[in-house]
Amino acid sequence: MGNNPLFLSLSLCFLVLFNACLATNDNFRYVSRRFGEAGQSRYRECRLDKLEAVEPSRRIEAEGGVIEMWDPSHEMFRCAGVAIQRYIIDPNGLLLPQYTNAPRLIYIERGRGFKGVVLPGCPQTYQESQQSGGAFRDQHQKIRHVRAGDLFAVPAGSAHWTYNDGNERLIAVVLLDVSNHANQLDFHPRTFYLAGNPEEEFPEWRLQWKREQGRHMSGRKEGSSNKNNIFYAFDDRVLAEILNINIELARKLRGEDDFRRNIIKVEGGLEVIRPPRSRGGRRGEEQEWEEEQEEEMERQRESHQRSRWDENGLDETICSMKMKENIGDASRADMYTPEAGRLSTTNSHRFPILRWLQLSAERGVLYRNAMYVPHWNQNAHSVIFVTRGRARVQVVNCRGQTVFDGELQQRQVLVVPQNFAVLKKASEDGFEWVSFKTNDNAMINTLAGRTSAMRAFPVQVIASAYRMSTEEARRLKFNREETTLIPPRMSSRWPA
Amino acid sequence: MGNNPLFLSLSLCFLVLFNACLATNDNFRYVSRRFGEAGQSRYRECRLDKLEAVEPSRRIEAEGGVIEMWDPSHEMFRCAGVAIQRYIIDPNGLLLPQYTNAPRLIYIERGRGFKGVVLPGCPQTYQESQQSGGAFRDQHQKIRHVRAGDLFAVPAGSAHWTYNDGNERLIAVVLLDVSNHANQLDFHPRTFYLAGNPEEEFPEWRLQWKREQGRHMSGRKEGSSNKNNIFYAFDDRVLAEILNINIELARKLRGEDDFRRNIIKVEGGLEVIRPPRSRGGRRGEEQEWEEEQEEEMERQRESHQRSRWDENGLDETICSMKMKENIGDASRADMYTPEAGRLSTTNSHRFPILRWLQLSAERGVLYRNAMYVPHWNQNAHSVIFVTRGRARVQVVNCRGQTVFDGELQQRQVLVVPQNFAVLKKASEDGFEWVSFKTNDNAMINTLAGRTSAMRAFPVQVIASAYRMSTEEARRLKFNREETTLIPPRMSSRWPA
Amino acid sequence: MGNNPLFLSLSLCFLVLFNACLATNDNFRYVSRRFGEAGQSRYRECRLDKLEAVEPSRRIEAEGGVIEMWDPSHEMFRCAGVAIQRYIIDPNGLLLPQYTNAPRLIYIERGRGFKGVVLPGCPQTYQESQQSGGAFRDQHQKIRHVRAGDLFAVPAGSAHWTYNDGNERLIAVVLLDVSNHANQLDFHPRTFYLAGNPEEEFPEWRLQWKREQGRHMSGRKEGSSNKNNIFYAFDDRVLAEILNINIELARKLRGEDDFRRNIIKVEGGLEVIRPPRSRGGRRGEEQEWEEEQEEEMERQRESHQRSRWDENGLDETICSMKMKENIGDASRADMYTPEAGRLSTTNSHRFPILRWLQLSAERGVLYRNAMYVPHWNQNAHSVIFVTRGRARVQVVNCRGQTVFDGELQQRQVLVVPQNFAVLKKASEDGFEWVSFKTNDNAMINTLAGRTSAMRAFPVQVIASAYRMSTEEARRLKFNREETTLIPPRMSSRWPA
Repeated sequence: MGNNPLFLSLSLCFLVLFNACLATNDNFRYVSRRFGEAGQSRYRECRLDKLEAVEPSRRIEAEGGVIEMWDPSHEMFRCAGVAIQRYIIDPNGLLLPQYTNAPRLIYIERGRGFKGVVLPGCPQTYQESQQSGGAFRDQHQKIRHVRAGDLFAVPAGSAHWTYNDGNERLIAVVLLDVSNHANQLDFHPRTFYLAGNPEEEFPEWRLQWKREQGRHMSGRKEGSSNKNNIFYAFDDRVLAEILNINIELARKLRGEDDFRRNIIKVEGGLEVIRPPRSRGGRRGEEQEWEEEQEEEMERQRESHQRSRWDENGLDETICSMKMKENIGDASRADMYTPEAGRLSTTNSHRFPILRWLQLSAERGVLYRNAMYVPHWNQNAHSVIFVTRGRARVQVVNCRGQTVFDGELQQRQVLVVPQNFAVLKKASEDGFEWVSFKTNDNAMINTLAGRTSAMRAFPVQVIASAYRMSTEEARRLKFNREETTLIPPRMSSRWPA
Repeated sequence: MGNNPLFLSLSLCFLVLFNACLATNDNFRYVSRRFGEAGQSRYRECRLDKLEAVEPSRRIEAEGGVIEMWDPSHEMFRCAGVAIQRYIIDPNGLLLPQYTNAPRLIYIERGRGFKGVVLPGCPQTYQESQQSGGAFRDQHQKIRHVRAGDLFAVPAGSAHWTYNDGNERLIAVVLLDVSNHANQLDFHPRTFYLAGNPEEEFPEWRLQWKREQGRHMSGRKEGSSNKNNIFYAFDDRVLAEILNINIELARKLRGEDDFRRNIIKVEGGLEVIRPPRSRGGRRGEEQEWEEEQEEEMERQRESHQRSRWDENGLDETICSMKMKENIGDASRADMYTPEAGRLSTTNSHRFPILRWLQLSAERGVLYRNAMYVPHWNQNAHSVIFVTRGRARVQVVNCRGQTVFDGELQQRQVLVVPQNFAVLKKASEDGFEWVSFKTNDNAMINTLAGRTSAMRAFPVQVIASAYRMSTEEARRLKFNREETTLIPPRMSSRWPA
Repeated sequence: MGNNPLFLSLSLCFLVLFNACLATNDNFRYVSRRFGEAGQSRYRECRLDKLEAVEPSRRIEAEGGVIEMWDPSHEMFRCAGVAIQRYIIDPNGLLLPQYTNAPRLIYIERGRGFKGVVLPGCPQTYQESQQSGGAFRDQHQKIRHVRAGDLFAVPAGSAHWTYNDGNERLIAVVLLDVSNHANQLDFHPRTFYLAGNPEEEFPEWRLQWKREQGRHMSGRKEGSSNKNNIFYAFDDRVLAEILNINIELARKLRGEDDFRRNIIKVEGGLEVIRPPRSRGGRRGEEQEWEEEQEEEMERQRESHQRSRWDENGLDETICSMKMKENIGDASRADMYTPEAGRLSTTNSHRFPILRWLQLSAERGVLYRNAMYVPHWNQNAHSVIFVTRGRARVQVVNCRGQTVFDGELQQRQVLVVPQNFAVLKKASEDGFEWVSFKTNDNAMINTLAGRTSAMRAFPVQVIASAYRMSTEEARRLKFNREETTLIPPRMSSRWPA
């Protein structure tokens, strides 16, 4: 085993799971009596007879970009206890400061930008030196660069903002884990904005979602007098007293007559204190390699610091905590089969904040006609978002029934429930995706290949169970040497 | 950061939270089909459009004192997954031995007494020496002194009793965390008495609560043949056999014809083995200081012992576990602003049993017209109980709607749901309270002051988000130097 | 305390509980709208007014044995959040490879066999040496012997199989903890078979269970086209491509026309690679003693290895993890009273995989007319399965009402809810049982005997609470010296 890095890696993952056995990942299903029919409870009902590839059904068009929402009342999302949204932020666009009742796991599909996450009690370590500006020096909490391929974690209730400082759109798909233990409100995603006059992202009425489907409502709905900014509710005079400012300035906190909505455009660009993104103007592979090195160092540094926690229970690590990990770069792949594709996974061992969020993710690329071996998720739901290409996907339940068999395309989401068997085959165009998993150390069991359940069984068990000769059982068990990704045959038999 | 004790303290709190990230605090809402309308499910429904300051709606008058209960079916309590009751024990009053399906966090408002909590498997370390009495020596488990300002923790299912050995009434407000993971029964608080003929504290029918409101039923309800003492159900002869006593004595366990109810009066006072409360007869500040020193020593001793656990996984610490911490003494305050007031908080780092209970608490005192800056609870509900005075309180939801704006008075309870923004301003009389929080390391984010989210944002983000000049954004960000409590202006603008 | 091993053991248990305080054991109740009446929610409804001794209500007769199922929709099982089944495997019978959405805790009532559990990522450490066979050498994951008295743990989603290599039937009772955090599907037990054409163990419709009662349906139900084998759903050609085998062989995976059902018979016996069960042909006590020694060594080895985890977070321990512990052997008893019986308990400290499963168990033997002192389960439900004999059992709720008072017989199951008081008295035939507990460190509080709550109270508290003289209170407190099991009096007063 020691000689096989794959065994080691999988075993490590399993070990971490065991080690973190206390980490409950109670993924409950959300039931609103409004959503229910005839007042019936559908709590924790993952008895899905039919899955569906789902596209966004709602869209907010703001000054500085667009937000797309998937219907959170869809039974697939209720089963997984999650909600999905996607940000498309224009260059110079700023997603307003906000916090949510659920932790967020964010995958950056495209572009670059930076992000601030407020950690209460942490110092303002980004400081302008005296000589850099005028009489006044700003100082604020750490700001983190993001770029395509990054997985970014935001704890529930933590205020955060995002800015696109690049030349192309910054696109990010977001998992909101509303059934996470960190959410003590109900299972509906609720975003609390700290500024502006934003539109509500997930209105609560299913009816509304239904009605909106197909026409992509973008304006504010009639009759709504909500401002969706927590400052809106406070009295100007009280705010002025509390902040020790005048009333006119306090009034600006309330966002009245602000029609820019959730994402605003910063004229002239946003200037904040932050370290340079790239040194020496290098681009491409070299720069990526350098960023990876930095991340690796950050990882090691943090790992070291964590052991210091164990010693004295007191450290400043949380304030410089690693909040992102790149799982998109080709060079980062954990599994790579030249003719089939690559996979990058992460878990709370590599990316410790995931232990807090109880989530993890997998980034995959399948080349044309390649397959992901059939497998089941042992301890998590898998929420697949397609970033590029197409695949034929089949999902099977415990009764041997196919609950999904169809094509999955870009921008579609499919939930594969825990323990259900799933098989993917890329189309002629290939297939690229990110899977969010509802466990910080998600494990899969494959049904074919060198690390499969088949290999774990004795040949005689296989021969007896399938009524085969010993020789046939050996072929079944040993003929496939790949572990996860399978290159296409010359004549592929399953139409994608 | 190292120079700022507040940063250190908040950061430590955050750090502990992360460290204890596995500590789920699944606060579920309780739904009885009896409480529901038309059989509809309202599980985990924290979609409160309207909060309310709630007073006790039921009262049990017993021989040795009174118990007040808040209606556990109120949607605010169902949202937070908790129940509230309050004991008023007369001098020489003994609250009968009992255990509950939920952990208890108890705040001693007033008076003094002592408390026994049964820890199964722990030795009877309080022993009478031979010469102290007659032929027979008693021995029993540890007894703990309590006094005003103490926070006391009782695990779910642990038997406990309380006695008032002072000259004034012993008053205690109790949070029962029915949605705690330690409760595997339903979300209704159920107290199992081990003696007497007590009245049921939380009858299950909402109807009953409704009917009782305003008339404070104190006698036993008609038609009830329950005795609410688990010994009542067992056969006298069987008890006699098991306890190896005669049947007449066994019969006394059943509490028949005992009309003293839940709190009894001990004629002549209760004599138990316990260390002296105060040495040298000192009183007041000096004595308090001394008790604090003892508590600090206990804390350190325990901390030391806990590290011994880590070494060999075996220790006797649990049996001498710290079950109380004083958060009421002025000298204990974690935050103090001379003209505004003081705050004492605790968490599982300071008071380790809270890690088990997944609860924590905050004790606050606001001087006349002072304010608690607007803030949100990041990871907990906050259950406020008013011990003295009055305040105007405003609570705001994610839509910028005010869900509570009113006065909060002594003996009233208000639940501030997780993530909702809240602002408090003391009346002319000042305001004193205790807040129970449904997380063992509850964190707040303030909206103004030196450690606020505003300070974490860059000035340019503030300027862009609120459409201000850079200069205005700097004022908004830096004009308020206090962190949490704000002294009144000369002419205060918000009527309390 | 140090001189009393019982104190030490109980205290250790309590200590471990505290240490593992983060280990939530959220035992939720399952509600299907199909099971509910009039669409009403009964989620987490452990308000049982009446308990019942329940026998299996469904039975699958397969080629190599029988599976019995208890109705999972019974309110007692819904309260505890568990399901129960029992395997009776004939000699040479093989229970087909499968995995379930819930962890399993298995008690081997009778017989012997071996079991494979697939741990993804672990190496195939059982290897045939070159000289042992023909040209081809098999290798597979570890195989574990089981025998009567073993408690065996299988994680949720882990594939496993069982084979009877003995001369008598292998009988095992299985707890499926469907409300475990490891199950993210609904609360219904769902078994995913990897082979054959098995019958569904727990069909979802209550109606069906009702109809089946009494007639023990054993054939496949009409109209059912399910094959209950996940391979059944996949296309032969796709499977052939993935496994790199021909289509004829791939077709055999689907189990068509296989009428052997869930347990098959292996003609000529199953040959797998495994270490010899017993050395030198010894039998009986001596062999048991030797196996115990091996288990003890395994325990120590693992304990040592676990400390290595703490150092570097990386080890191979999970792959050689201890999955069983014998709690049936008389010599293993933790409590033994010569004239009353014996008790063996385990918890996650002795048997670490239980920390992952959040379950534990107790094995008990009561001799004729002996009693188990009345007690309550502090932090768990107790699911009692009777392996032999009969007892009279009484269960009491918080209102002092008897919710069960009757005889419990072999093959019956009774759930004693958390905190309810329970008393057991063996019949003339004696009484033997196994109790599954829904907490990995379940604790009891006794109401009589040397470690009881009574002993923890001061004599004066007892005298005041029960209106007794001090002398009577002393008798009540000190007259019973046994801790848990009480020998019968000459003239026993409670008819069994």
